[in-house]
Amino acid sequence: MLPKGARDRFAALLGPGNYLDQPDDLKLYEYDGGVDKHAPDLVVFPRTALDVSHIVKLAREYRLPVVGRGAGTGLSGGAIPREGGLVVAFARMNRILEIDLEDERAVVQPGVVNLDITAAVEGNGYFYAPDPSSQRACTIGGNVSENAGGPHTLAYGVTTNHVLGLELVLPDGAIVETGGKECDLPGYDLTGLLTGSEGTMALVTRVTVRLMRKVELVKTALAIYESGEDAGRTVAEITARAITPVAVEMLDGVMLRMVEEATHAGYPMDASAVLLIELEGLREQVEEQVEQIREACLLCGAREFRVARTAAERDLLWKGRKNAFGAVGRVSPTYYVQDGVVPRTKIAPTLRFIAEVARSSGLTISNIFHAGDGNMHPIILFNPRQAGDLEKARGCGEAILGYCIEAGGSITGEHGVGMEKNELMARQFPPETLEMMSRLKLLFDPEGHLNPGKVLPTGRGCLEIRQQPLTAGTPLL
Amino acid sequence: MLPKGARDRFAALLGPGNYLDQPDDLKLYEYDGGVDKHAPDLVVFPRTALDVSHIVKLAREYRLPVVGRGAGTGLSGGAIPREGGLVVAFARMNRILEIDLEDERAVVQPGVVNLDITAAVEGNGYFYAPDPSSQRACTIGGNVSENAGGPHTLAYGVTTNHVLGLELVLPDGAIVETGGKECDLPGYDLTGLLTGSEGTMALVTRVTVRLMRKVELVKTALAIYESGEDAGRTVAEITARAITPVAVEMLDGVMLRMVEEATHAGYPMDASAVLLIELEGLREQVEEQVEQIREACLLCGAREFRVARTAAERDLLWKGRKNAFGAVGRVSPTYYVQDGVVPRTKIAPTLRFIAEVARSSGLTISNIFHAGDGNMHPIILFNPRQAGDLEKARGCGEAILGYCIEAGGSITGEHGVGMEKNELMARQFPPETLEMMSRLKLLFDPEGHLNPGKVLPTGRGCLEIRQQPLTAGTPLL
Repeated sequence: MLPKGARDRFAALLGPGNYLDQPDDLKLYEYDGGVDKHAPDLVVFPRTALDVSHIVKLAREYRLPVVGRGAGTGLSGGAIPREGGLVVAFARMNRILEIDLEDERAVVQPGVVNLDITAAVEGNGYFYAPDPSSQRACTIGGNVSENAGGPHTLAYGVTTNHVLGLELVLPDGAIVETGGKECDLPGYDLTGLLTGSEGTMALVTRVTVRLMRKVELVKTALAIYESGEDAGRTVAEITARAITPVAVEMLDGVMLRMVEEATHAGYPMDASAVLLIELEGLREQVEEQVEQIREACLLCGAREFRVARTAAERDLLWKGRKNAFGAVGRVSPTYYVQDGVVPRTKIAPTLRFIAEVARSSGLTISNIFHAGDGNMHPIILFNPRQAGDLEKARGCGEAILGYCIEAGGSITGEHGVGMEKNELMARQFPPETLEMMSRLKLLFDPEGHLNPGKVLPTGRGCLEIRQQPLTAGTPLL
Repeated sequence: MLPKGARDRFAALLGPGNYLDQPDDLKLYEYDGGVDKHAPDLVVFPRTALDVSHIVKLAREYRLPVVGRGAGTGLSGGAIPREGGLVVAFARMNRILEIDLEDERAVVQPGVVNLDITAAVEGNGYFYAPDPSSQRACTIGGNVSENAGGPHTLAYGVTTNHVLGLELVLPDGAIVETGGKECDLPGYDLTGLLTGSEGTMALVTRVTVRLMRKVELVKTALAIYESGEDAGRTVAEITARAITPVAVEMLDGVMLRMVEEATHAGYPMDASAVLLIELEGLREQVEEQVEQIREACLLCGAREFRVARTAAERDLLWKGRKNAFGAVGRVSPTYYVQDGVVPRTKIAPTLRFIAEVARSSGLTISNIFHAGDGNMHPIILFNPRQAGDLEKARGCGEAILGYCIEAGGSITGEHGVGMEKNELMARQFPPETLEMMSRLKLLFDPEGHLNPGKVLPTGRGCLEIRQQPLTAGTPLL
């Protein structure tokens, strides 16, 4: 609950219809796509950077935490106000401000839906490359905050490789630009530092992104395996041949069956794994590469290799992949997705380890992931109404991420750290490195009121680095 | 001159043979590849990160500026100790520590020469992508500091796209790692922030880089033009066809003649411009692209299009490009290279502007540059013994960079800001953005003793942001 004085001042600042403060409404903002929950005390809907600046200044007066939110599709709790306070929802800052095809740039507000950028330019032969599975719903602001990836980031890189400039509101309300349409800006890379900072340093109010030209030909193939290990080996074999497909996605047997039942994408019901492989480029190049990939798949034990013959067949293959999470929802009351990264060469042993974790926990874990990047997405199925199941699922996730760190990998490829993995940061980095990160955070947000309790360890462990929780409602000034 | 006490303590710390303090020796460290000069008071040669840490701590006691140096090939004065003090020369930290082909990584000390990484792995079919023209001499530490580029960064990106982790010594002597071989590390992107920070935040003592697979086929073509504008239009035409060559280099007529006389690369002596275009990939793809590029060149008015038939012919074409700076040295007592970036679509008007600047200053300006990136390298020829010529050359450079900023570009593509362009930063960025950069600098280096007077404006203009010069020899503690 907000103190009455604060509520009244926000109401006066924003005007009716531009905020939510009733418990039933606030409950809709207590979750994202992950498993953590906490309701805000107030949800506000700015329309301009100046609105955001005023909101941040007033929140600061009352020492209220401020948490940005796009579409709430995040998977690590980034948009959850774990200490209450304000959610700044960017739903009404959803305009594409400029399309500049000559320079291959788009300038957009943070609430623009990812796929809407491509929709605005595809008629002219362009697209926006990063393609999270949630791209029909997720917003660019959230993508920037979490440095989102997607199947095609194997070839095109993650969000940070496509963001050229940001307009930001700092925790003191200052509005700052880090760059615009220019490439290769001089000085310290502010845009790069802020991209992926998960709303803990600033709120993004405008984004300049790179547009890319669509290619001549796209081919999508499905390789079907009796063994997950063979599928894993194929990924290494493709790399060894110096071919970079634009996407190499793996689905294991459990996932295949769930997806096929839900989407009828034509995936085999009896296989142990499939690889969904996409190639792009000039006609001759792609046709040559498809043959090389076919050879690699069959060499590694694929029982079948199919190439989509039409755009409709291709869309169907991707429909299976992109709707996989919905398919899981038909089978299990809920699920918990992880996002660990391992070197490509360690995919097969990581899958073995995940199977072992599933066996010993008694939970079902299925796998669907960006195999080309070594970015694993084990999906842990559980029943939140069964006592202890959520804890068991979290335990599985933590064990798998611990394995990824040991394997020379990372605890997140594209979902961010959020409030889900921040305590694990102490296993990923030595204390001195976390100390540097902590000092960067404090430089931008010395009072810790932007998205508190995210990214860095909260100090519940033995670390020196801790974030001070704010006490909502105590005026600072 | 160092105070005697300081000199003796450094001598005791380092031991004989590990430092230089005689004026004749120090003079060799007063310049880099640019036009600015200042001698250090002491040059030290660490062998380990711990050596660097001890050096930094002792320098701090005496408030001595500390400036890192690789091979001294930089073009913006990054390695010049403009306020005296110490040069930390990384010449003896020149070992490749690890080659890990399975994970496609190399771990190297900062003094390793750029091309030596490729030499160590090319037998296995790999290479290190960023290729500055100075790659036979320049070092990885310098490349990281300046975020170096090269002709092939059109396809492969600049240094920051190939650096995965750093070991650093902070100004207080702390040794910190930002990451290692892992991709996609969680948290704030320290590696990205430090890459390109020009030695103003930390000294790099170990670098983990990405290795790439060599491709099947490389084709290099030379397109010859009667008009520089036609060459400029060709670059836009190639982009419009959605082909990304790995390199598109332009040489204007003045440069062509200088280069041809020096290298006999087979460049035409009578043309107004040439494009040197390189394509890489699978055989079918490259052969198809060469034909598309030929068509684009001829359509835009090329009078001739030649493809190198053998590796020897290809090497000869590149020899001309890579030795261009030496060729200029045969003709002019000295020269001043600029590094502005403009949108690719604005290459032709920028070339006209440069020609206008040359005419009005009376100096010769020739152009050789990464046309595919819009990264212009006007080379301003002048005679340093002629009174006023250096100032005239600087004036030309400043006018050209001002034009690049106005055109929506940048004052540096790959050479860094250094002490050459730091006052221009106030034209590139608004004051709030510079203030953020300044605060980042101070976070890492609160006493301003790492590479003082670089990157940010020194405050000789009207800006609030200024760097306090240190007074060498006054002990801090």
